[in-house]
Amino acid sequence: MEPDSKPFTPVSTLGEFGLIGHLTNSLHLLQPSSVKGVGDDAAVIRYKGNPYTVATTDMLLEGIHFDLTYTPLKHLGYKAAMVNFSDIYAMNARPRQLLISLGISGRFGVEQLEELYAGLHMACTRHGVDLVGGDTNSSLTGLTISITVLGEATKKQLTYRNTAREGDLICVSGDLGAAYLGLQVLEREKKLFEQDASFQPDLSSYEYIIGRFLKPEARKDIIDYLERAGITPHAMIDLSDGLSSDLMHVCEQSQLGCKIFNHKIPIEERTAQTAEEFGLEPLIPALNGGEDYELLFTVGTDAYEKIIHFPEISIIGHMVEPEAGRYLVTQEGTAIELKAQGWNHSAPMRTSLPAQEDGRQKK
Amino acid sequence: MEPDSKPFTPVSTLGEFGLIGHLTNSLHLLQPSSVKGVGDDAAVIRYKGNPYTVATTDMLLEGIHFDLTYTPLKHLGYKAAMVNFSDIYAMNARPRQLLISLGISGRFGVEQLEELYAGLHMACTRHGVDLVGGDTNSSLTGLTISITVLGEATKKQLTYRNTAREGDLICVSGDLGAAYLGLQVLEREKKLFEQDASFQPDLSSYEYIIGRFLKPEARKDIIDYLERAGITPHAMIDLSDGLSSDLMHVCEQSQLGCKIFNHKIPIEERTAQTAEEFGLEPLIPALNGGEDYELLFTVGTDAYEKIIHFPEISIIGHMVEPEAGRYLVTQEGTAIELKAQGWNHSAPMRTSLPAQEDGRQKK
Repeated sequence: MEPDSKPFTPVSTLGEFGLIGHLTNSLHLLQPSSVKGVGDDAAVIRYKGNPYTVATTDMLLEGIHFDLTYTPLKHLGYKAAMVNFSDIYAMNARPRQLLISLGISGRFGVEQLEELYAGLHMACTRHGVDLVGGDTNSSLTGLTISITVLGEATKKQLTYRNTAREGDLICVSGDLGAAYLGLQVLEREKKLFEQDASFQPDLSSYEYIIGRFLKPEARKDIIDYLERAGITPHAMIDLSDGLSSDLMHVCEQSQLGCKIFNHKIPIEERTAQTAEEFGLEPLIPALNGGEDYELLFTVGTDAYEKIIHFPEISIIGHMVEPEAGRYLVTQEGTAIELKAQGWNHSAPMRTSLPAQEDGRQKK
Repeated sequence: MEPDSKPFTPVSTLGEFGLIGHLTNSLHLLQPSSVKGVGDDAAVIRYKGNPYTVATTDMLLEGIHFDLTYTPLKHLGYKAAMVNFSDIYAMNARPRQLLISLGISGRFGVEQLEELYAGLHMACTRHGVDLVGGDTNSSLTGLTISITVLGEATKKQLTYRNTAREGDLICVSGDLGAAYLGLQVLEREKKLFEQDASFQPDLSSYEYIIGRFLKPEARKDIIDYLERAGITPHAMIDLSDGLSSDLMHVCEQSQLGCKIFNHKIPIEERTAQTAEEFGLEPLIPALNGGEDYELLFTVGTDAYEKIIHFPEISIIGHMVEPEAGRYLVTQEGTAIELKAQGWNHSAPMRTSLPAQEDGRQKK
């Protein structure tokens, strides 16, 4: 559980330029579009054939977004890259280049940064992304990671949030709610460990949900499948704040309503079991949990035949006229109004169904 | 001197999405290349006519890179953008889009962030740059600003560090050493204020050097001039770590030596006066001070006639064969070997001439 049980070489032994060189000298640029990587005032990139560049940035702060008592640095590096790739895929684009800025306190030595970079490199290699630039700084406390990823798409491929159409099928990839419950298990075990340092957590039965939290995988496979199948979604977003909140963005920006069905929302058996262990209806983390990094997209009904055969995609409902509102329909036929809720790392999740809590919040 | 003497509205009253909307809803995209700004998973950019994209990133951490006791947030926002623009100009490119990630502790309210954004907007407007994306987070302590800037250039314009040629003239824009001394004055006055809170600093005679530290201006005018004059530098770098260190990068990457002349190094009278007040030879902050954000570039001797007429550019020496080494030549004809020294925000600057300290450091 200790982040610094490995050998420790102070960063100052290498100096800033030495450190950057040490961490990046094994890099080989893979993308033909990476003209110039680390080592000049700026990176140089060139996409061929009149493409569009997409750019996204994300900052992760120790104590807010991650807890190093249960997050291996290698996993953290992997995840920090992955959450940005996910944003690029959500534009129906391909990630190509990554820039990383770090703020590191004296608690982190060369070996710890090597771990972080090992995870980063693994993520980049898996998704064909080049690390082309960055900035390394000392910080007074903790670790801060800021990543920017650039990607490319053609005009035809680009998929926004505001272009869903009435009647569109609403699709999500993978399954939802697992990452949130993985985090809850890790937090619970941390508390037990703090009370009794001899406590040996047995996390084997939670491997799936913990993995979903610590090492999410951006859904390149879905973008690949859609391309092969000749489907360009009408609208797309990645699920980082939770299905409810992220679907709201699509509804608001597309000026439409939606109807989704609770029994269509994909929830893994292991997620459902753990939810019940925590006294939660499994639907709650799926709706409001956040950090799923799955893709939510809408397609015309003509794509139904192709979508239905791909096991990694679930059709959970459809877009409706704005006047019809935004509802989750239960198997009993009850319609519950959906509410947006940002994924707030420092506040507890809303733990009841939206409509039930509605009255309490309106004050 | 207090960063939070203004009205204070907690960020939580707006929430993350509300805050981003509040800070960015007055934005109008100016660049035709900014296809989609804030509000989707990623920004979308398209440069016309087969251009190259350049990308740079920089992180500023409270307590390391800035001290809010004497740095107004508006200046900080301005500077945070400007240091990135400077990197883009140093590629002989033009900045076009900016993404910003913030980590903000509870000490910062909506009004403080408005100030920061006001400075950011001023910098962007002045340099024709669009704010197209970002990420706002709470932090446990302090303020962290991470900025990425994208720019464009043609292949012919792009200027690297590793392409200086033997015999090239070495040129620098503006004057050097002022920012470092501005920081020293601010630190001195802060100490006096801490000893006696009724102390009223009179900084009027230091206005120039303090301005150079708090509100640097990236040298778009130099890039404009070079373009008008039809000059493409052979190599270029921006002076962020100090002339000595940054010139070393050009020498190392171009595998050449250099000879610069101390009486050619541009130092403002007000900089020289303050240096003497601090018991420093004026040349020292010019060589090792850092944060000048001037441009250093090399040109062929055929450009001499054009360069010599532009008052904002000084020719300080020339590139020589690698065997001749890297030297500063004094008016008395003494040659002092130049040393690289990274600008280290948490360590004191080297305060003697490089060669003098050389012996002491070799242990």
